[in-house]
Amino acid sequence: MHTPLCDQLGIEFPIFAFTHCRDVVVAVAKAGGFGVLGAVGFTPEELEIELNWIDEHIGDRPYGVDIVIPGKYEGMDANLSADELTKMLQSMVPQETLEFARGILSDHGVPVPKDGDDNALQLLGWTEATATPQVEVALQHPKVTLIANALGTPPADMIAHIHDSGRKVAALCGSPYQARKHADAGVDIIIAQGGEGGGHCGEVGSIVLWPQVVKEVAPVPVLAAGGIGSGEQIAAALALGTQGVWSGSQWLMVEEAENTAVQQDAYINAGSRDTVRSRSFTGKPCRMLRNDWTEAWEQEENPKPLGMPLQYMVSGMAVAATHKYPDESVDVAFNPVGQVVGQFTKVEKTSAVIERWVQEYLDATGTLERLNEAANA
Amino acid sequence: MHTPLCDQLGIEFPIFAFTHCRDVVVAVAKAGGFGVLGAVGFTPEELEIELNWIDEHIGDRPYGVDIVIPGKYEGMDANLSADELTKMLQSMVPQETLEFARGILSDHGVPVPKDGDDNALQLLGWTEATATPQVEVALQHPKVTLIANALGTPPADMIAHIHDSGRKVAALCGSPYQARKHADAGVDIIIAQGGEGGGHCGEVGSIVLWPQVVKEVAPVPVLAAGGIGSGEQIAAALALGTQGVWSGSQWLMVEEAENTAVQQDAYINAGSRDTVRSRSFTGKPCRMLRNDWTEAWEQEENPKPLGMPLQYMVSGMAVAATHKYPDESVDVAFNPVGQVVGQFTKVEKTSAVIERWVQEYLDATGTLERLNEAANA
Repeated sequence: MHTPLCDQLGIEFPIFAFTHCRDVVVAVAKAGGFGVLGAVGFTPEELEIELNWIDEHIGDRPYGVDIVIPGKYEGMDANLSADELTKMLQSMVPQETLEFARGILSDHGVPVPKDGDDNALQLLGWTEATATPQVEVALQHPKVTLIANALGTPPADMIAHIHDSGRKVAALCGSPYQARKHADAGVDIIIAQGGEGGGHCGEVGSIVLWPQVVKEVAPVPVLAAGGIGSGEQIAAALALGTQGVWSGSQWLMVEEAENTAVQQDAYINAGSRDTVRSRSFTGKPCRMLRNDWTEAWEQEENPKPLGMPLQYMVSGMAVAATHKYPDESVDVAFNPVGQVVGQFTKVEKTSAVIERWVQEYLDATGTLERLNEAANA
Repeated sequence: MHTPLCDQLGIEFPIFAFTHCRDVVVAVAKAGGFGVLGAVGFTPEELEIELNWIDEHIGDRPYGVDIVIPGKYEGMDANLSADELTKMLQSMVPQETLEFARGILSDHGVPVPKDGDDNALQLLGWTEATATPQVEVALQHPKVTLIANALGTPPADMIAHIHDSGRKVAALCGSPYQARKHADAGVDIIIAQGGEGGGHCGEVGSIVLWPQVVKEVAPVPVLAAGGIGSGEQIAAALALGTQGVWSGSQWLMVEEAENTAVQQDAYINAGSRDTVRSRSFTGKPCRMLRNDWTEAWEQEENPKPLGMPLQYMVSGMAVAATHKYPDESVDVAFNPVGQVVGQFTKVEKTSAVIERWVQEYLDATGTLERLNEAANA
């Protein structure tokens, strides 16, 4: 599965692993893939600590950092500093929505932060004002060779700045239209994420989306996302013209991940029909396990989810509870994951996942080769 | 792409083409694939005429017939004859729903059938009572070697009857759970249709669904459906362990099809995001182009779609108008199609489609082979 993109990035396998855990970034890199750390939840100071740790443990291997600057979000045209924007956005959260969210948690016996609590209504990295300092931190680390934007085309000056520092830019998309915008802006690697995918995704399935995006942006390399959890699925992705895969769900299910045992059990027990595209955590459609939290925001009589980034400022308390009170929050936890969750039966070592994927890939492509040989015989 | 299933069925390519047009069945067979005629809209007498025509033109090639006996539908436990069931179901259609449907059409300038019109409230083949005579007709035709059920597991006695006559049974599914039910009932070929697919489909994307179904029912052969419109997509399907593909959308876009030019233009102009899973035509979620008809049934204040087969008895007037008044009905027509519609740029000859798919398949698998050779070099 070694494609030209592997040589450009100096990796063995075109397996890009999106994760919030620094340990997984390192383990993926050591197994021949390319780890990408999701930065959205870290302050610049916290991110600096994470990247220093990765630098110390990853040897001479490269890795990436993923930020979130949505194409559209509340306050994007306000031209405010991070602190000013945070204050403005905090003032925009309706008390009714906040009380509703607290009520879901307290009804499930989950401790709820009070007004004025440091953990309440944090903005995190969901805007250009708050993501830009994260990029600045990342660019101080020479082994960071790729900055990816999870939602929308990165701002033009940011792309230029990253390029000037000798790094590549990647961006996710869910349609050929978005892919074209990325390519026109100078994005180096387009990640086409099908509707099967965990986290933010569109409605078009991977098997249809991937080749459309490949055709739209050729010769810009495309990574396949949405539904990657085996080497067979990588073979399918490469057959459809992509140069590699971008996966997220699988790395929630490795020993090196920080996901709680409760969460990993939930993933193991879930089938592919137990996920839902819900706006209840981030304000934009995001695939996750269906539970009492996601259902509550669907009820006609209840407050609707706010826009991005307001909704995450509210749902952040549920996200925090997912980690702090895993048992109490089991029915209201944030469990982002793709439909590929239906394949998961156990927690594996990261290196074992990559070895398995490579073997499955060889088996799948070997089957195709034998079919061709038999047809020619 | 010649798989063991090809030898079992005596065909060159494992390309199964679902179509309502007898000409397409013949053209697919002559090009090396396996055509399957959708019977739901034909009376037994009409079906007999279609199959006789196919028999005369198809030479010694085999073909299939597709029926619809849903796993659940209104009146399924009534144990009535076809005529009695039709009368009972007709009496169950609320006048309000019927008037609403007529209103959508007349608002668009489409002539509307009156009460008592022969074209109003027809049941067609959507039940065991009305599909069984279709099967009886099909089994009188020796070149029919496969009976497929589009929704649900066929009744046990019907499977036995088809097997006794020396034919194979296929059935569509959208989950491993349904696939298991099919396999346990003795279905010979399982068709796994991802959420991308046109017509009735579930929510799980093909890239995730196909390998799950293959694993669930092995060694029963699986056909991949949902998102098939190129040879690359066939290569992906075979890489994921299926033994062939079941396609529908593509055969709306061939010269031999009876689809109107208006409809084919609509497909050419549509992107993958212009389809919707709607209950507005058949009562169950079915993927089609979004238009004024599908939108009208989504409005809060309007009547909801009825269950299957009641809704199609109502929507039948829109389906008839699609063919009879193509220009007037352009915004309310029934245009079932999968997300693969975004790939369509022209109407082709059936033989040209199959030749193209074979070449694209060889190109895609050739690319994978060269990657493996380079990695081993």
